[in-house]
Amino acid sequence: MDPMKIVERQAEPTPSRILMLVMDGLGDLPRYGDGLTPLAAGSKPHLDLLAKDGCCGRFDPVGPGITPGSGPGHLGLFGYDPTEYEIGRGVLSAVGIDFALRPGDVAARFNFCTLGLDGNISDRRAGRISTEENRRLVARLRQIPVPSGVEIFIETEAEHRGALIVRGDKLGHRLADTDPQRTGVPPLRVKALDAASRPTAKVVAAFVDAARKELATEPLANGILLRGFDSLPKIPSLSERFRLRPACIATYPMYRGLARLVGMAMPPAPPSLAEFPAAVRAAREGHDFLFVHVKYTDKAGEDGDFERKVAVVEEVDRLLPDLIGDGFEVVVVTADHSTPVALKAHSWHPVPGLLWAPGRVFRDPVTVFSETACIGGALGRMPLRFLLAEALAAAGKLAKYGA
Amino acid sequence: MDPMKIVERQAEPTPSRILMLVMDGLGDLPRYGDGLTPLAAGSKPHLDLLAKDGCCGRFDPVGPGITPGSGPGHLGLFGYDPTEYEIGRGVLSAVGIDFALRPGDVAARFNFCTLGLDGNISDRRAGRISTEENRRLVARLRQIPVPSGVEIFIETEAEHRGALIVRGDKLGHRLADTDPQRTGVPPLRVKALDAASRPTAKVVAAFVDAARKELATEPLANGILLRGFDSLPKIPSLSERFRLRPACIATYPMYRGLARLVGMAMPPAPPSLAEFPAAVRAAREGHDFLFVHVKYTDKAGEDGDFERKVAVVEEVDRLLPDLIGDGFEVVVVTADHSTPVALKAHSWHPVPGLLWAPGRVFRDPVTVFSETACIGGALGRMPLRFLLAEALAAAGKLAKYGA
Repeated sequence: MDPMKIVERQAEPTPSRILMLVMDGLGDLPRYGDGLTPLAAGSKPHLDLLAKDGCCGRFDPVGPGITPGSGPGHLGLFGYDPTEYEIGRGVLSAVGIDFALRPGDVAARFNFCTLGLDGNISDRRAGRISTEENRRLVARLRQIPVPSGVEIFIETEAEHRGALIVRGDKLGHRLADTDPQRTGVPPLRVKALDAASRPTAKVVAAFVDAARKELATEPLANGILLRGFDSLPKIPSLSERFRLRPACIATYPMYRGLARLVGMAMPPAPPSLAEFPAAVRAAREGHDFLFVHVKYTDKAGEDGDFERKVAVVEEVDRLLPDLIGDGFEVVVVTADHSTPVALKAHSWHPVPGLLWAPGRVFRDPVTVFSETACIGGALGRMPLRFLLAEALAAAGKLAKYGA
Repeated sequence: MDPMKIVERQAEPTPSRILMLVMDGLGDLPRYGDGLTPLAAGSKPHLDLLAKDGCCGRFDPVGPGITPGSGPGHLGLFGYDPTEYEIGRGVLSAVGIDFALRPGDVAARFNFCTLGLDGNISDRRAGRISTEENRRLVARLRQIPVPSGVEIFIETEAEHRGALIVRGDKLGHRLADTDPQRTGVPPLRVKALDAASRPTAKVVAAFVDAARKELATEPLANGILLRGFDSLPKIPSLSERFRLRPACIATYPMYRGLARLVGMAMPPAPPSLAEFPAAVRAAREGHDFLFVHVKYTDKAGEDGDFERKVAVVEEVDRLLPDLIGDGFEVVVVTADHSTPVALKAHSWHPVPGLLWAPGRVFRDPVTVFSETACIGGALGRMPLRFLLAEALAAAGKLAKYGA
């Protein structure tokens, strides 16, 4: 049995508080020459102090060799086995624009596309129209009447991308993609993949036809392509599983959405990094698990910008004393996945992590926080979901198992 | 598949012998100041030599963050997944007083309690009567007649605590606790939780009524409360699983009982630590796996006594040459769980372990036996049950898997 099932059973509420600070895509590779990673190269006295007084390790979000998307990475952080709860593309799109998806809603990603006079797709992305243009078109689509008992939400993501959500009673979500993933052919027809999804297919097919009529006068974006139909997976909340009262401090909708999926409270997003400490202080009341998400390390990694990634680490480090204050018994600092500067993309390398809880964790010989130093840490290398178990134990939130 | 299933399949009997020395609750945390644990602080040249010539690692009895009771800790030591074989409170009570529980016996923990004139519980522990008083009351309860075809055993544990065992044909063990866990209310009625347990409930209910009549004249302990009904789990023996011929050298009934659960032979308990080497020598004949259990490290940890824990480690170290002699090809030294002095209780921290088998194990750079040194050990950090697999392999008891 997965030991996390035992963790669930033994979890008990306490007043002690856990801060989980996630620097998105923090993990990196040593560069040639000095062998430093951005985390190792930065001046970050506060993170180093936490590492020195705490214990460190390395964590696989899904498993060795597996590069996680944001969904699986965060499920791992929150103590879930990411292979047990898969989040479909459509759900992630809805969640990624902070759409409050309800159980039973059916969500799909859509692209505006260009259709030729013959009805075939000539451009799957409608010339990558601007987000502003997308909003104008979405306003048109929102005027399409829908059958009674059903609601359809059309939401702009960015450029040619958006999310379509169908809300109604007993709507199955097993629909085939209408995006054929190539040009020169017509969009595929809306098709249910099981009996329960036939009513959904009927509603969506009618909407797609109506959208085509509505957009017929548009020069570029005169059609839509749909893919990744899915409903919210039945994910038990952090409160149900571990009896936590969690809250999320994050700026980007995607991460707020992922936190919402596991039942986190959602105070307003702080507008900038400098506002994070105040947001954390405000959220401490009534919550014993604070998930704090910093996006900019990942962006720097994706851009291949070593110096900028260093600068983000240093900026977070400067905020750290104010962020923690005297409000937390346990602090975790880690990442949802690695985004090495040299690869400019998510990667499969384990993420570094530190766990600080005075008198409660094994003070190992690690004295600085870096991927290389973490190799010698007391936490070893383990699946990321177990880091939450270690944090809960350090916070005194797990009762003894067995007599 | 759990790799231990493969270990089972590949196990073969050989004359080589394994000594598994378990220092209960040995694992600890570095203290402030010098960063030493009791294991690191002690003078223990023989243990250090085994670590230097062998290999080391750290082991999670159940999983990261999970604090094990003695049951799960020992199942891990013996190569079992503790989440697969749960041992109920009643069974552990019976086992803990060296009661030879048989398959099908139904065991429960009982407390003597005080009932008021209104029938409500006024003290769940009957004023914590003495063990001697407990024995006197148990003698009274043993006079209660039981239906033919059934036996009831009433056994003193200590103070107000005891074990009740029902033996008979086809008696289910799914009975609800009668202990309401609070005062001011009457004991709960004896209740079967499934059809197979109804005959058991009938026998137990009649006994509880008779006990109340028998004890009616007692000033303090005039009732009993029952909890943790359970039967022996169907645990395959070490002999069935790994073709071992195991024996147990332990003083405390609890650990003897746990060893009996996995089919170990049970020579008489040595009266003191000094007698352990002679007991081990005597048990070597006819046995190829000796489980040797030392309790006193755990007791020192529970008492928060750093110096005494050091002293126990040093005493065991002095006995070590005599304990091992030339009788073992493989020596394992480890613990069932950590009991840090600073926490005065079992904890979730992984236990240190060493594996010695000349020419057969990877001699890693670890030269002393301590929790911190073990971080750099070749065995890494893994579930405790895999340590037995490593020991079996080092003893030449595992055939190659696959062609």
